[in-house]
Amino acid sequence: MASSAHDPGGAPPSRDDYVHHRVLDTRWRDNDVYGHVNNVVYYSWFDTVVNDWMIDHGLDIHGDVVGFVVSSGCDYYAPVAFPDPVELGLRVGRLGRSSVVWELGVFAADRIEPVATGRFVHVFVDRSTGKPVPVPHPLRPGIEGLVAD
Amino acid sequence: MASSAHDPGGAPPSRDDYVHHRVLDTRWRDNDVYGHVNNVVYYSWFDTVVNDWMIDHGLDIHGDVVGFVVSSGCDYYAPVAFPDPVELGLRVGRLGRSSVVWELGVFAADRIEPVATGRFVHVFVDRSTGKPVPVPHPLRPGIEGLVAD
Amino acid sequence: MASSAHDPGGAPPSRDDYVHHRVLDTRWRDNDVYGHVNNVVYYSWFDTVVNDWMIDHGLDIHGDVVGFVVSSGCDYYAPVAFPDPVELGLRVGRLGRSSVVWELGVFAADRIEPVATGRFVHVFVDRSTGKPVPVPHPLRPGIEGLVAD
Amino acid sequence: MASSAHDPGGAPPSRDDYVHHRVLDTRWRDNDVYGHVNNVVYYSWFDTVVNDWMIDHGLDIHGDVVGFVVSSGCDYYAPVAFPDPVELGLRVGRLGRSSVVWELGVFAADRIEPVATGRFVHVFVDRSTGKPVPVPHPLRPGIEGLVAD
Repeated sequence: MASSAHDPGGAPPSRDDYVHHRVLDTRWRDNDVYGHVNNVVYYSWFDTVVNDWMIDHGLDIHGDVVGFVVSSGCDYYAPVAFPDPVELGLRVGRLGRSSVVWELGVFAADRIEPVATGRFVHVFVDRSTGKPVPVPHPLRPGIEGLVAD
Repeated sequence: MASSAHDPGGAPPSRDDYVHHRVLDTRWRDNDVYGHVNNVVYYSWFDTVVNDWMIDHGLDIHGDVVGFVVSSGCDYYAPVAFPDPVELGLRVGRLGRSSVVWELGVFAADRIEPVATGRFVHVFVDRSTGKPVPVPHPLRPGIEGLVAD
Repeated sequence: MASSAHDPGGAPPSRDDYVHHRVLDTRWRDNDVYGHVNNVVYYSWFDTVVNDWMIDHGLDIHGDVVGFVVSSGCDYYAPVAFPDPVELGLRVGRLGRSSVVWELGVFAADRIEPVATGRFVHVFVDRSTGKPVPVPHPLRPGIEGLVAD
Repeated sequence: MASSAHDPGGAPPSRDDYVHHRVLDTRWRDNDVYGHVNNVVYYSWFDTVVNDWMIDHGLDIHGDVVGFVVSSGCDYYAPVAFPDPVELGLRVGRLGRSSVVWELGVFAADRIEPVATGRFVHVFVDRSTGKPVPVPHPLRPGIEGLVAD
């Protein structure tokens, strides 16, 4: 459980390894039969943090360019549970012409190490043709600022 | 759309008509195809606010007594959308021996009137027998404090 | 628990009291900490059955007219749990110029009586103005066929 | 988009490459603002297919041994949308003493190639201690039957 296939051999990231931070609520329904937040919910947090950040930096979600998720993944190190909030850290692993690799860390109040780390890849496409297009201009400088060192 | 079947002829409640208040996040996935938070999600907020309040006031969700929802309802007056947060107000409409009628208001930043009002009924039961039992002792004084005037 | 505020004194409906029927899956995440399908999920089934029926009868969900939910409610009589499927029954309680009152029954394999009954009200509006408009023409005859006797 | 990081250079799997198959409903709320099933929902399908299979093969979800998800991932090749159902294929990529690597394919009616492929890792633990334990005995032969050639 300790090491992720995506960060082989590396030390787990800390809060400082992420550039943007956001606290998110948990919901009653996030806990499953086993009493912890279900593994699916983490991806909902990832979507929320990234889209919130993009909207805040000028993405028009009703515009001609949309971000399609082509790949996603998460490694889970320790459980969390409602009603505790979680803290999300966001950074960019790679910025391409049309694509962004978002990297996320999930942190809980009582731990320095993340309880989970995740990632997903957006490819920006023209809504009508479905063809890849450049990352929208208003977003690019902000995304560059999220690129991890 | 203006008046609820549950508050016939009455003026809509304001924030001050609720006793407990809680701000909740919206999530990307809360918005449906029509670009607004889907009607289902409001019930998830209701569940969250009430269970959070009960846990904070001593409910042991792994204990012998559980609250079963036997009825719920919501009236929707105006849409809300991610990424805006919502503010929930909570009060108790009726406190019985085994049951509680929770009443909730959903408020958005730019409106005095609620965007939605809801309600649901908990009956507390013994987890093993399913038979109604008194509202758990640690909760009762707190719930009395939530009863609307 | 036995009688609903919406059907005072009446016998509970049976499968035959509904006109359209649809079996739906449950999902692992539908069960909450208490091991039964969470009360919120029922509304997701209602939405699914009604929208599926409307799309099948000619609603263009990307068109100019959208159905807004202005009120919803559910009474819960007995729990259900993943992995069991549920059977939904649909009928129309009232058909107005711009609005439809949908009524739903949830049935499980081993019971004649419903495990839950619900209802919600759609008001059809122009997507751009938000003003009520007549129920879309292609849907009207089909909806009339769902009106309960 | 064509090749997954997890199957580098390989041809995409077909339905026949999976051992167990299950058709699943989509729900109205699965579609997000962009009109397709949201990326998060796929993981809910994975959880559903695997838990349904395990329950059917003797897992007691209220027993002493629980399966914790320690890693998950998905590659998305083409969108799907409510109201279309999806067909899930399941196989096992690796069976360890305490862990199982589940592999899933998502298929739609009109395509031979999968619309998505996913995977997640269960580690079975003792519910009270959280320590890894052997894969439950009743499940082991069935899981061996799911191992891909």
